[in-house]
Amino acid sequence: MFTNSDHTELAELGEFGFIDHITQHIKLTQPSTIKGVGDDAAVFQFNNYSTLISTDLLLEGIHFDLSYTPLKHLGYKAIQVNLSDIYAMNGTASHVTVSLGLSSKFALEAAEELYLGMLLACNKYGIDLIGGDTTSSKQGLVISVTSVGYASKENICYRNTAQAGDLICVSGDLGGAFVGLQILEREKRIFLENSQIQPDLEGKDYILERQLKPEARRDMIDLFKQLNIKPTSMIDISDGLASELMHICKQSEKGCKLYEEKIPIDTMTYDTARELGIDPSVCALNGGEDYELLFTVKQEDYEKINNDVDISIIGHITEDVKERVLISKSGAIHPLKAQGWKAF
Amino acid sequence: MFTNSDHTELAELGEFGFIDHITQHIKLTQPSTIKGVGDDAAVFQFNNYSTLISTDLLLEGIHFDLSYTPLKHLGYKAIQVNLSDIYAMNGTASHVTVSLGLSSKFALEAAEELYLGMLLACNKYGIDLIGGDTTSSKQGLVISVTSVGYASKENICYRNTAQAGDLICVSGDLGGAFVGLQILEREKRIFLENSQIQPDLEGKDYILERQLKPEARRDMIDLFKQLNIKPTSMIDISDGLASELMHICKQSEKGCKLYEEKIPIDTMTYDTARELGIDPSVCALNGGEDYELLFTVKQEDYEKINNDVDISIIGHITEDVKERVLISKSGAIHPLKAQGWKAF
Repeated sequence: MFTNSDHTELAELGEFGFIDHITQHIKLTQPSTIKGVGDDAAVFQFNNYSTLISTDLLLEGIHFDLSYTPLKHLGYKAIQVNLSDIYAMNGTASHVTVSLGLSSKFALEAAEELYLGMLLACNKYGIDLIGGDTTSSKQGLVISVTSVGYASKENICYRNTAQAGDLICVSGDLGGAFVGLQILEREKRIFLENSQIQPDLEGKDYILERQLKPEARRDMIDLFKQLNIKPTSMIDISDGLASELMHICKQSEKGCKLYEEKIPIDTMTYDTARELGIDPSVCALNGGEDYELLFTVKQEDYEKINNDVDISIIGHITEDVKERVLISKSGAIHPLKAQGWKAF
Repeated sequence: MFTNSDHTELAELGEFGFIDHITQHIKLTQPSTIKGVGDDAAVFQFNNYSTLISTDLLLEGIHFDLSYTPLKHLGYKAIQVNLSDIYAMNGTASHVTVSLGLSSKFALEAAEELYLGMLLACNKYGIDLIGGDTTSSKQGLVISVTSVGYASKENICYRNTAQAGDLICVSGDLGGAFVGLQILEREKRIFLENSQIQPDLEGKDYILERQLKPEARRDMIDLFKQLNIKPTSMIDISDGLASELMHICKQSEKGCKLYEEKIPIDTMTYDTARELGIDPSVCALNGGEDYELLFTVKQEDYEKINNDVDISIIGHITEDVKERVLISKSGAIHPLKAQGWKAF
């Protein structure tokens, strides 16, 4: 991404020089921020609100591949992924801390690019970056993000409060991030076999963006307020629809019926999955990284959400904890299976 | 540390199995904890207090060497190091989140040992472990800890509020953690050369414990209350006395005079440094990892602290920003030099 003339090694700057250089870009806008970067701890204060906190660890080679991930997008995504957890509580995200492990050969300009992507996400969502840690790494890039938010006690949506009869809903569409990743992996393989061949990513913008530059669904939190709805339970989709729905069922001690034909899949996701010889429904169920919100609402809220283009009703919660099933398009009944990462 | 019969690979358990297994040990005791592990975000609520947050990233090969670090101690230290930052704000630590990157070959029993060390530290200091992230790692062990605490607004001690004339003080003694590390590194080298030779660590308990199992100085925060003192500035010593004092001077836009003969060094630290042919004062100034508190107090508080065995007065703050000096035992004046990590 960088020419050699633009290359300043971090070793030249040292830790404090790097922190000074990077933190100059930070602007604080949250009224609750009392002290940001530059002390042992950041200080913030909310009145009459519950504080929310969530944390994610992203490792090179596990969560991202720098051979096809622009650093700015990676920084943007690292923040979005973490904010998504706060929105999944029906909360307002307000602050993040960022810890980075950088190899000594990482250029200042590269670290800056990563940081700028993070700040872009923060600025877009009105988030203050208030602290972190920076260290050298012998093992590739390490990114740890912790986000803080708030919500009034009565508005918080947990995972363990779904009730039998509740409608299972999802925002946006699913599977795109996974199919986008398959395209990037395919082009990487082709490039490694023959570096003369340029990557063929044309017309795949939407699914590539789903993978490389996802957006946390803050707009849904605003929509719930507008529609005067409080979901009875909520979770964000990072591991895949099946896995997340199983979390809600397990924690709520309930069952579920999910209808394959109701699962929202974008046309480009569908066509590209077919082109790659993979089942679009499996991409949506187990692909993950869509960062859409999966939530349940009371049946009486049906009218409020039925006409919203951004919400799909995909099933309902049942009383029987043993009945966690997917009804296929043909009407066949399959047990739902949760999958976390398989990389352990 | 483990026999083969006690070996359960994490790959067998999977992510959710591992989380279920590990989180059973967590007990929540903080009244402010509304929701701990098990949702997208943890929820807590403080009334009329400012919230503090701090985060640290610890990487294998940079911050710790598993060849001589027992995992339980490592877990304990990872928490202490982070709590230390909250105490350095004159705050009360209350919650932590823990993210782990674990290689797939890491045994369940090993991960559990690490976790038990963390929970030991949490229990000892009355901290709730309320969330985190667990992922596989291709690059050795990664530990990211974020701690949350609180303080009344008027009690918080920042780094940028030292005044000319203030006394520079430090808790406990310095250099021990660094000298302890040199002993561990020496024994590792000897072992690698000849695995028949058993490590000679006898009589070095204190400095080894300083390195492997440090204690954050929560007791100092209690002592300040008891003595009715509020430090005018404070920072914890992670990088070394010189570096931390420079942070206070830089952020307060002040100078300092530090007296070498006043720097508290334990006898075992002193003797072992001499034995290893290194200058004990340099260990105290630049060694780091002591996790003692460096703070400044008003001159009129002199009588309150003068007789406390746990506090050493080691210099004073001056008006001249260019005068940041160390007065050696011989009376020679040296400019202070800050060093962060040198590993970049």
